[in-house]
Amino acid sequence: MPAESYERLITLLKRAHTLGTVAGLLGWDEQVNLPPDSADQRADQSALLAELQHASASAPEIGTLLTELEGRERGAGPAITPFFSEQSVVIREARKDYDRVVKLPAEFVAEKARLSSAAYHAWAAAKAKSDFSAFAPFLEKHLELAKQEAAYLGWGDRPYDYAIDKHDPGMTAAKITALFTELKTGLVPLVRAIAASPVKARTDIFHGFPVAEQHAFLREVTERLGFNYRRGRIDVSLHPFCEGAGADIRMTTRFDVDNPLDSLFSSIHETGHGLYEQGLPLAAQGTPLGQNAGMGVHESQSRLWENQVSRSRAFWAFFEPQFRAKFPTQLAAVSSEELYLAVNEVAPTLIRVDSDEVHYNLHVILRFEIERRLFSGELEVRDLPAAWNALSQELLGLTPAADKQGVLQDVHWSGGAFGYFPSYCLGNMMAAQLWFKVREVYPDLDADFAGGDFSRLLGWLRTNIHEQGRRYETGELVRRVTGEELTPKYLLRYLQERYAPLYLK
Amino acid sequence: MPAESYERLITLLKRAHTLGTVAGLLGWDEQVNLPPDSADQRADQSALLAELQHASASAPEIGTLLTELEGRERGAGPAITPFFSEQSVVIREARKDYDRVVKLPAEFVAEKARLSSAAYHAWAAAKAKSDFSAFAPFLEKHLELAKQEAAYLGWGDRPYDYAIDKHDPGMTAAKITALFTELKTGLVPLVRAIAASPVKARTDIFHGFPVAEQHAFLREVTERLGFNYRRGRIDVSLHPFCEGAGADIRMTTRFDVDNPLDSLFSSIHETGHGLYEQGLPLAAQGTPLGQNAGMGVHESQSRLWENQVSRSRAFWAFFEPQFRAKFPTQLAAVSSEELYLAVNEVAPTLIRVDSDEVHYNLHVILRFEIERRLFSGELEVRDLPAAWNALSQELLGLTPAADKQGVLQDVHWSGGAFGYFPSYCLGNMMAAQLWFKVREVYPDLDADFAGGDFSRLLGWLRTNIHEQGRRYETGELVRRVTGEELTPKYLLRYLQERYAPLYLK
Repeated sequence: MPAESYERLITLLKRAHTLGTVAGLLGWDEQVNLPPDSADQRADQSALLAELQHASASAPEIGTLLTELEGRERGAGPAITPFFSEQSVVIREARKDYDRVVKLPAEFVAEKARLSSAAYHAWAAAKAKSDFSAFAPFLEKHLELAKQEAAYLGWGDRPYDYAIDKHDPGMTAAKITALFTELKTGLVPLVRAIAASPVKARTDIFHGFPVAEQHAFLREVTERLGFNYRRGRIDVSLHPFCEGAGADIRMTTRFDVDNPLDSLFSSIHETGHGLYEQGLPLAAQGTPLGQNAGMGVHESQSRLWENQVSRSRAFWAFFEPQFRAKFPTQLAAVSSEELYLAVNEVAPTLIRVDSDEVHYNLHVILRFEIERRLFSGELEVRDLPAAWNALSQELLGLTPAADKQGVLQDVHWSGGAFGYFPSYCLGNMMAAQLWFKVREVYPDLDADFAGGDFSRLLGWLRTNIHEQGRRYETGELVRRVTGEELTPKYLLRYLQERYAPLYLK
Repeated sequence: MPAESYERLITLLKRAHTLGTVAGLLGWDEQVNLPPDSADQRADQSALLAELQHASASAPEIGTLLTELEGRERGAGPAITPFFSEQSVVIREARKDYDRVVKLPAEFVAEKARLSSAAYHAWAAAKAKSDFSAFAPFLEKHLELAKQEAAYLGWGDRPYDYAIDKHDPGMTAAKITALFTELKTGLVPLVRAIAASPVKARTDIFHGFPVAEQHAFLREVTERLGFNYRRGRIDVSLHPFCEGAGADIRMTTRFDVDNPLDSLFSSIHETGHGLYEQGLPLAAQGTPLGQNAGMGVHESQSRLWENQVSRSRAFWAFFEPQFRAKFPTQLAAVSSEELYLAVNEVAPTLIRVDSDEVHYNLHVILRFEIERRLFSGELEVRDLPAAWNALSQELLGLTPAADKQGVLQDVHWSGGAFGYFPSYCLGNMMAAQLWFKVREVYPDLDADFAGGDFSRLLGWLRTNIHEQGRRYETGELVRRVTGEELTPKYLLRYLQERYAPLYLK
């Protein structure tokens, strides 16, 4: 009975998903609550959950059911089961997941895990000493394993495309090269012009913002943006993150009494991720239709709320009085324009995670270029520092004095996470493209924001992005929602419109 | 290879234990953190973990290994493998656990779970209306299932003893009857005398104790008692509890700005449970040698710290100045004697959970007497309210005006938890017996406490109780540590020595 087979498949997928949510909660608790000497027990718990989750996701019964259902799909023909019907999407995406789990030999997975652990420690030590050569052998081995992984999955001729597709389904190195080239061409002159501007944002004007009031304010903001605290929380951790699926979203933030904007904007960023997860169809939870569409799409949601929405004049028209009411003395000497300029600070830095939204994309383009050349063989691992520094000078106008501020600054490569960086910039492009589209649909959205109402924007994102789950690949989703291919022109236009009036008057 | 068989058994037991700790964390998180609308997802997660834990604990391989190892134990004879050797204990207790898991048919377990759920709602509704007859059929069914469960486990002729043994290994209704009869004989006159005393503790003298300071104070107290916050936490929940095994202990408390002693003493009570769990041998975690010896022993630890230690003059000699330093204005008009009398308030109440430590035991004796008669057939379920009220008058000198303050007050029976109540009183007896023993070993313990040093007491409990795990049954443990059978005489002596000077001067 095919209907029964489909139901059974759903049951098995949901079971694996539930184990994943438990593993996720263990991870959240580890960052937020775990007493320091309880780490060994947590490692045992997490390892057992990972084992059970793997066994659940690779159950042979899933493979049998998929083969049966795929045969039936083919037999029925596209007229009867359209490619984007619920069942077709579930079968297509479940097959992708299943293959990724079962086509990698257990020994390979274990080897990659062992390498990642060793490489992490080697990276931390190498970074401390700014000694890239101590990390290079680990990176070489990771590159080798990444190619091997692609081969196992049938992408042996396009290993970097495989790495990209894992994060952003349907994207390729060639597509990204075209997008980033256009973006870079428009962005570098803007960055140079702002750098030459006499206008400088001041962020040293914030002092003594008590944590309790910061927490109360960001709670008001995130709630008004639409985060549902009946299905989520916000807590404190060393690095902000957002964990969880549909029914229980756990965000975190951190506090600095002399930098209230850091906590506020990182909370809004995580809120963007959280709104996406809360907007996925709850009934489909645990199946591809209830899962997010990939890293770039996820990042588009966090960035849209963090940047386009919350750095806007309309947003601050509503929230500035509330911010001042919470911190009357601390903000007494800060004018509205100083505050708004601080919110939209642009200042070059060598460090990606400290970067503003104008420079950020250049940091990503640099890393993509390095990865692309590594995979194509144009670049050897040993030549990375020189290539990095040259690109840094070309893109940012800065050359790192030491590798710790350059090629060794990010943790990602120590885990073999290639193809991950581009998502950040794809997300930024998509956010801007969605931003211009939604304001075409609702031209008076600024008036909503100035009145503290974000529900029309959220509703539009819910319908067009969140509720689609994994139905469409990244490119297809953008095309369907905006009527255009993914393009950097909206991001360039957005950055120009936001920053030129502030810095290039 | 028997050594390998034993190692394999340990591996399987630890695996089931690890799943149990994950389930425990889900339960803790549910009480402490879970957003209100995330309950359905948590139910799915907990149900799946319960299923996996059951499968893990009932793995046929465990049965095979146990049979093999038991055969070898018998062959070797007691001279070679003494009954209390580590391996013998593990095999004996693992067999007990395994039989309890596999001898109950899945359908029976499901039926009991369904009944408990229905009975819980019936009990809540019946209590709200003080209508025992609406709950009676559920209780009758629970009684029937309890007898059936005992029969499955081979205790068909002694079902109440089986229920008691589940909570306190080796205890029987006959032993408890003898202990409680002696206790009651000594306790009722003391209670009556205190009731007639003109001295009354005042607990309405506490107002406006801010939560943050209460939290800071109880943290100082519990840390000084010995709780290791590197392997544990304290958070807030509706009802205080202590969850977790060896490596990660999560206690909870609750705060009332007008009742700081409630939070303090409930925190100390949970600290007693937490110290026991933290003192279990970490290397043996997941095996019976790393598990607690039963409910009565557990309660002896919580009660010893809560009552014998923390209601003592020596304890307050050290902590009163610190308490006053935290709350100088709130305590300005409260004399030392008023404070100490409030700490040791004795006042009769119909409600067990509101009861002081003098009356508490009478509440337990009442419930044991009811359960004993129910199982022996002397009492029918329909006659419970009358029997309850008569016993209440006899023991407490109070008759409930309605069943909600009488036979319907506790949730326990709605879950079929027979044999659970006696543990509370067994724990109180044991706590007092240990208290007199340790002061025989260290006669100057009061001086330690007055100096804020609780380490000798904790060290003695660690060695004699905590580190023993499940090596001994309750009675054997008490005999070995104190040199005497478990007896109520020390509890009576302790209550007399503490309360007579306060109320019967």
